[in-house]
Amino acid sequence: MAARSQIPANLLSGHPVSKAVTSRLSLYLRELQRLVRDGHDRTSSKRLGEALGITGAQVRKDLANFGQFGYPGVGYRCQELIGQIKKILGTNRPWTVALVGIGNLGRALLGYRGFIQQGFHVGVAFDVDPAMIGSTIEGIEVYGMERMASVISHHEIKLAALAVPSGSAQQVADQLVEAGITGLLNFAPVTLALPGSVHLVEVDLAIELEQLSFAVVNRQQKN
Amino acid sequence: MAARSQIPANLLSGHPVSKAVTSRLSLYLRELQRLVRDGHDRTSSKRLGEALGITGAQVRKDLANFGQFGYPGVGYRCQELIGQIKKILGTNRPWTVALVGIGNLGRALLGYRGFIQQGFHVGVAFDVDPAMIGSTIEGIEVYGMERMASVISHHEIKLAALAVPSGSAQQVADQLVEAGITGLLNFAPVTLALPGSVHLVEVDLAIELEQLSFAVVNRQQKN
Repeated sequence: MAARSQIPANLLSGHPVSKAVTSRLSLYLRELQRLVRDGHDRTSSKRLGEALGITGAQVRKDLANFGQFGYPGVGYRCQELIGQIKKILGTNRPWTVALVGIGNLGRALLGYRGFIQQGFHVGVAFDVDPAMIGSTIEGIEVYGMERMASVISHHEIKLAALAVPSGSAQQVADQLVEAGITGLLNFAPVTLALPGSVHLVEVDLAIELEQLSFAVVNRQQKN
Repeated sequence: MAARSQIPANLLSGHPVSKAVTSRLSLYLRELQRLVRDGHDRTSSKRLGEALGITGAQVRKDLANFGQFGYPGVGYRCQELIGQIKKILGTNRPWTVALVGIGNLGRALLGYRGFIQQGFHVGVAFDVDPAMIGSTIEGIEVYGMERMASVISHHEIKLAALAVPSGSAQQVADQLVEAGITGLLNFAPVTLALPGSVHLVEVDLAIELEQLSFAVVNRQQKN
């Protein structure tokens, strides 16, 4: 428990474990999945850290927030740690995601293999375009917006991805919350106001480019 | 300078300022831009922090890494701080970005208003599809891959976005580096090996969904 007190609370949300830590859990998971694909049974905090450019001590500290996972003199058993991290992240069960907006971005998300690889399945889609409603894209049926509440309730869907124009994002988000969504991934470059019970992750791709321009301008040293 | 020593080195890259801090610079910038749109001339660290769900002290600490920006008894002048943060991020000048891969994701990126809003302009595009090469999409000319080195060199482009299938991502990344790209935004769900002189930001959209499933499963309290 001493270790936990050294982990800063998530400054953006007040979570007891920082987003930096939970994001690294995803990266550990990716590296462990790669190790298993390459035929490795075991690994170490040092090796996991090297793959991410951080110390083994940091890896151990991150994982210590959630329990005791390694074996002295053995390290981590890859498959076992994969299962444990998935359990922490909630991806030890499949998630069905509702997608709203079937423009270019929406279509890209429907075909995004990275979702399926990690257990997320876009199961239903919604759009306002009468020409799309009732059609099937990448095997997914497209519904009109007026069906949102009934379809999301019927499939007991909790997560939604919002890929609509900025101007309609808040209205659609309100509809999704009304329909029972509790986790929302917003791709529209606009700030949404949501009830405190709904978790929001905003994907602002310009932030990623700003990280790049910062690094290039400041000629930051890499390891 | 005392404040800087309290900022952890970026554990992923060895940067003297953590990615968490530079990411928050982007969020401060968004909030300041919103304040200006709403007619505000000044703001405070407390108010900026409230918009992000963090303390004013954290805002001041973040900014202290880069200089002295506020005025005692006045706070921050919005337009002035916008200019200063853009200078830090390197976005006080426009950036031209090369896009490789004009599938659904590539087309979505071509039309992504969030890039233009922050000073990033997709200026050239590349694809392998002969039917696309020579065409113009969203006003951007699409070139064949064999033109990459000459076009990127001619326009002195330093940043590229990679929206190709996973299987060809490493090969295309190598070509981009060869062509002179020093900052690469990778959307393919695959780990790339790049020279130490090239900055890489990997966009793994499943990580964002994992943050949501973690929050929903662990019923984390929000502010």
